[in-house]
Amino acid sequence: MKSSSIKVSDIGEKELIERIIKKTRSCFIDAENSHNAGLNSYSTAIGDDAALTDVIIDENSYLVSSSDMLIQSSHFPDGMSYYQMGFKSVAVNISDLIAMGAEPVGFLLNIAVPKDLLLDDFDEIICGVVGACDYYKMPLIGGDTNEAGEIIISGTAMGKVEKDMALMKYGFEAGDLVCISGELGLAALGFELLSSEESYEMASKLNQSLTDLAVFKALKPTPDYDNGRILADFKKDHIISATDITDGLASELYEILNADRKYQISNHANYEMSNNGRNLENDGDCNLENSYSKGIRIHEDKLPVEDEFKEISNALNLDYLDLFFHVGEDFELLFTIPKSLEDTLKEKMDFHAIGEIVEENTVEIVLSNGETREISSRGYEHLA
Amino acid sequence: MKSSSIKVSDIGEKELIERIIKKTRSCFIDAENSHNAGLNSYSTAIGDDAALTDVIIDENSYLVSSSDMLIQSSHFPDGMSYYQMGFKSVAVNISDLIAMGAEPVGFLLNIAVPKDLLLDDFDEIICGVVGACDYYKMPLIGGDTNEAGEIIISGTAMGKVEKDMALMKYGFEAGDLVCISGELGLAALGFELLSSEESYEMASKLNQSLTDLAVFKALKPTPDYDNGRILADFKKDHIISATDITDGLASELYEILNADRKYQISNHANYEMSNNGRNLENDGDCNLENSYSKGIRIHEDKLPVEDEFKEISNALNLDYLDLFFHVGEDFELLFTIPKSLEDTLKEKMDFHAIGEIVEENTVEIVLSNGETREISSRGYEHLA
Repeated sequence: MKSSSIKVSDIGEKELIERIIKKTRSCFIDAENSHNAGLNSYSTAIGDDAALTDVIIDENSYLVSSSDMLIQSSHFPDGMSYYQMGFKSVAVNISDLIAMGAEPVGFLLNIAVPKDLLLDDFDEIICGVVGACDYYKMPLIGGDTNEAGEIIISGTAMGKVEKDMALMKYGFEAGDLVCISGELGLAALGFELLSSEESYEMASKLNQSLTDLAVFKALKPTPDYDNGRILADFKKDHIISATDITDGLASELYEILNADRKYQISNHANYEMSNNGRNLENDGDCNLENSYSKGIRIHEDKLPVEDEFKEISNALNLDYLDLFFHVGEDFELLFTIPKSLEDTLKEKMDFHAIGEIVEENTVEIVLSNGETREISSRGYEHLA
Repeated sequence: MKSSSIKVSDIGEKELIERIIKKTRSCFIDAENSHNAGLNSYSTAIGDDAALTDVIIDENSYLVSSSDMLIQSSHFPDGMSYYQMGFKSVAVNISDLIAMGAEPVGFLLNIAVPKDLLLDDFDEIICGVVGACDYYKMPLIGGDTNEAGEIIISGTAMGKVEKDMALMKYGFEAGDLVCISGELGLAALGFELLSSEESYEMASKLNQSLTDLAVFKALKPTPDYDNGRILADFKKDHIISATDITDGLASELYEILNADRKYQISNHANYEMSNNGRNLENDGDCNLENSYSKGIRIHEDKLPVEDEFKEISNALNLDYLDLFFHVGEDFELLFTIPKSLEDTLKEKMDFHAIGEIVEENTVEIVLSNGETREISSRGYEHLA
């Protein structure tokens, strides 16, 4: 008899991941007891975009690894080609490496397909994978094929990053700028248009080129490799945090605050890669927990949103702020920089400063009409 | 219109993997053009048990990575507990690291489960994963959760191995002993017993302890970490090849011959990790292809098979040699050693020399009755 009848869908993906992290910590491997002598200096940033490992790397670099699984029914919208499915399986993983400031080293491909998939279609998926690996200059080095009821692609990207350049989710101060590397909401709109022919027709009539762009963004996400490396380079001399926006901007805003709070609570010295990350949740230190006071204020006026985007959203009865904040899949970066760095960084990359870190515990948006509204943490979540 | 109506099931898993490897080679990344300066010395052994990468590792070691996907309907027999599913997802990947002689560094877990899976059952899977990571002293460092129609677990194991200790599938000479690290066929029998209650009852009556052992081997494969490291240590001074037996011994015998033939044909110097593995299939060198002449002769009398195993197989109308050669899932090692090493190695590990490398192009078994029979390459293959 089960003691409990709670289903995974009752708690959702984020909570499930938290459970995994907790179980992992509770039986974390003893450094002394490890096969690997290097594990004495083992540390990870489990919970960040990708895992950081300082084993087996030369003394100046971390091994960075990220693994994401895409499932046809959840991740591949109608209208996505087989090539695009393959491409996306690489894009979602390289996105995590980029968000850590890492250089790609190699990609492992696990793919499961239905028995009756046409060989031509299989080849197209592989072309997409290889095309993306080529685009990101990341060799495909191994993997596995299997049979399943639908197409499932689980990719693993491995990379490396110099220790002083690793971009973590945490690390910012009141007054720092909250920035994004590009426009948000287009992929969300694209998914909407792909799911309804009526919406697509309506949007096309209003603005064909924006419609095409939105659909393209949904079908072929292509994170910008250079952005990660540019930020990583500035990380050497500045306090910079970064993450990729996959489940929606709002959800990521809460993520970085959460990561920063944990980072502050834990002993900095212990956490910062010189030691084991286990004491991340040293709950003993309640005073620090209570004294943590940082938040984020976004300004509607600063959002990079074209009027045409608002117009299409309105016509489709969609709240454009909802598309912007709560859907994701744009694979742009959310990052923070000291205000003093703004002009210098502008010379190197395109980005938009949309808000700032504040000293209150809040995540809010100042609307164009002057009102201030709390931003809900709602983001896209599987199994919820 | 599709130019072709061939389905993936018309060609099967092995051929699909070959297609992926070919596509990968044809658009392999230019060393000079790579983001990663280290890629100038990039090399992989795609097609071996795990990928070897000599980027980002200190000059004496390779990064070793393996990624395998397990799907409930294909890989988890009836009767397997949730804990065992989790454990197996680690075991199949560590098995590849062991077969390369590598030490584990970290594990990434991608898991997809149905919406209505009980949280207790999810937790049990994670306990299995963490339990296995603990057993193999390999930290769980990251991953992802998703929703799918059935349980899908895609794991990635990363490890490292000293360059002079890496165990490849190739590299042996006529006269070398062909060895296995333990008994084979038990897992195959276990799968049979799990699939039929009648068979299980019959086997139980004949020999309860062997029945229990067979079922246990099918439900909780637990590859022996030490075997890989012991062989790797001897690799420094001896010619040793190794692979893990996952799809059946017969299939692996053909695999090692195939790998050795490719290795011989390619320029040794080019292949041997100092350069790029692309010219593995330099088909130009046809003379070498024709002159390659090595084979394997197995002796039935030397197979580690108990009479009780034969007895149960007979009672179930199964050919015990079929269970031994053509099913797999035992996760033992198949390896070759020079005959001169046999006694020394016996002091370090349990193994069985079951045959030898011969100078003819053959894969054959000398039966106890004196007859010689060719061993078919048939092994377990998905999508076939």
